[in-house]
Amino acid sequence: MVRHMRTIEWDSTTKNIRTIDQRRLPGQLEYVVLLDYHQVAAAIKNMTLRGAPVIGVAAAFGLALAAFHSNASNLIGLKNDLQLAALELINTRPTAVNLSWAIKRILAVADSFQGRDIEELKNRIETEACRMADEDVQTNLTISKFGTALIEDGDTIIHHCNTGALATVDWGTALGVIRMAFEQGKHLHVLVDETRPRMQGSRLTAWELQQYGIPFDIICDDMAGYFLYTGKANKVLFGADRVARNGDVANKIGSYMLALAAHANKVPVYSVFPCSTVDLMLTDGNAILVEERDPAEVLDIQLHGEQVTPIGASARNPAFDITPQDLLTGYITEIGIINAPFESNFNIAIQQHRS
Amino acid sequence: MVRHMRTIEWDSTTKNIRTIDQRRLPGQLEYVVLLDYHQVAAAIKNMTLRGAPVIGVAAAFGLALAAFHSNASNLIGLKNDLQLAALELINTRPTAVNLSWAIKRILAVADSFQGRDIEELKNRIETEACRMADEDVQTNLTISKFGTALIEDGDTIIHHCNTGALATVDWGTALGVIRMAFEQGKHLHVLVDETRPRMQGSRLTAWELQQYGIPFDIICDDMAGYFLYTGKANKVLFGADRVARNGDVANKIGSYMLALAAHANKVPVYSVFPCSTVDLMLTDGNAILVEERDPAEVLDIQLHGEQVTPIGASARNPAFDITPQDLLTGYITEIGIINAPFESNFNIAIQQHRS
Repeated sequence: MVRHMRTIEWDSTTKNIRTIDQRRLPGQLEYVVLLDYHQVAAAIKNMTLRGAPVIGVAAAFGLALAAFHSNASNLIGLKNDLQLAALELINTRPTAVNLSWAIKRILAVADSFQGRDIEELKNRIETEACRMADEDVQTNLTISKFGTALIEDGDTIIHHCNTGALATVDWGTALGVIRMAFEQGKHLHVLVDETRPRMQGSRLTAWELQQYGIPFDIICDDMAGYFLYTGKANKVLFGADRVARNGDVANKIGSYMLALAAHANKVPVYSVFPCSTVDLMLTDGNAILVEERDPAEVLDIQLHGEQVTPIGASARNPAFDITPQDLLTGYITEIGIINAPFESNFNIAIQQHRS
Repeated sequence: MVRHMRTIEWDSTTKNIRTIDQRRLPGQLEYVVLLDYHQVAAAIKNMTLRGAPVIGVAAAFGLALAAFHSNASNLIGLKNDLQLAALELINTRPTAVNLSWAIKRILAVADSFQGRDIEELKNRIETEACRMADEDVQTNLTISKFGTALIEDGDTIIHHCNTGALATVDWGTALGVIRMAFEQGKHLHVLVDETRPRMQGSRLTAWELQQYGIPFDIICDDMAGYFLYTGKANKVLFGADRVARNGDVANKIGSYMLALAAHANKVPVYSVFPCSTVDLMLTDGNAILVEERDPAEVLDIQLHGEQVTPIGASARNPAFDITPQDLLTGYITEIGIINAPFESNFNIAIQQHRS
């Protein structure tokens, strides 16, 4: 394993953030330092860091930066500065709920603060952001322990996008399950959906699997159906960016077609996520806003060094899709595996967990 | 329209083949001359030309080349040379049945030849190959006339791979239907599946649509489900490489997942092909051999000029998949639109057509 740090780290001495520039992988493992919350917002927007859990934590650290850099001389001023930063951070990407979840949690620290010393509040915000980072790693390990019960020796698992250490503070969600099962000695093979257009699968997941020594083959996203139909894959795992109350899952574009193909071939398909990804405000997935990104992400692609798409061609680029709950076998979370019927099981579990 | 020639043309004076090097599009429109049947076999194998209908005609012309270049002094010698060439041509790509269909049709000319003049047989083979090329264009126009009845003003059509003029001698099958409907004045929008890994959609279909002035957007293959689920696409069309007796369709990898997503969202999905694509020897699609191509086609991809996949990563590359007949709304062929129940309707129609 080349990496010796978390995907995102807070330096408590210099008060800044160090993170991996995921756009440079797998060619280069490059660390960037984010010095203020504007840089954090830009890094989330341009996908220097991506993955629902880690962008939540990044936003929390972004608010810590905003707090330390605030020139406010009183609590009201500081809270105003935090609100301004929160607005900029939340507007970076609309689909993943972890972002607003993390921001709300930091703002709650400020709201409930009874003291008068604004330096003390800044320190409390820093402490809370660091706690959230630590919790994320623990949550992923707990998710993985539950998830490994579903992974059998000899499994061939199709995985979409990247849900590994890079998508989280460390360890990962769906990829964390695979990693832990492998470390338990189970023989696994992963079919890595390349995940067009940004290639989080063939760039990031393939790179992580190489580090861990887990056998894999990259496949194009349109090939997954072939492997499911011919019985060559027997599990499907992916993450989640926002989960509605009824269990509908917004996740990286392509998850829906993969879930359809798994379901049609009676192959178990699980969405893996921390409970912070659940948005109980939403009755179903239709209410989830799907980000549409720059068409250039689709158009700017070369094979053998030659540009693929004709000059002047246009493209669409929705970044997420909705997998309706009836296609899913279950959900793997830090409070356990949640099976059908989802609407009731899901909400009982989440409500108990949050109360 | 830039093109002023068919995708493949026979020069009856110099006895050679002129074809477009489809690997160079859309960057360059480059013609290559194929001088002997080995070059034809290589061009089919390395996908200088691709598309089930056109590789059938290319193989027929390849046999004409073999005939003209034969040093045999008698009929038995010439037939032996044709058999040798047929073997090399048929072994280029295993999935599309049009290849063996075309070769059988040329060999039948030799088999049924009653004369003694081998030059006369060579000319008959040339005539038959040219007739097959002409028939292909006529067949595509007939297919398109039937197909346009299904296309309504305002349709948004998802199309997979390339089934246009480039996949045939001229005009195209599924794309031919779209083109004719557009020429009839129907307002259409095409969502062009890019069709990983070879990008026949974003390279070839997008290029053709630009020539014809038909509005389109390129999408990644994993996005089609999003547009179907959200009601933004209301027809799906693709071609076929081999169709079994029960109606199961082998077509470019990704067709199956696309058909699943269309079917799940009650969007009509049609496979469009000439009857020469039907293989009545096969009871169902499970008997169809799926070609697996070089993993480098999946791995060698750059975004913004940078290599995407990690050094040493491996990949799988099945080039086709099977769409089971129960996912399809119907088939568009030169003998009309064939609807369910397929097993009976299909076979009655094809048998009548062939007898």
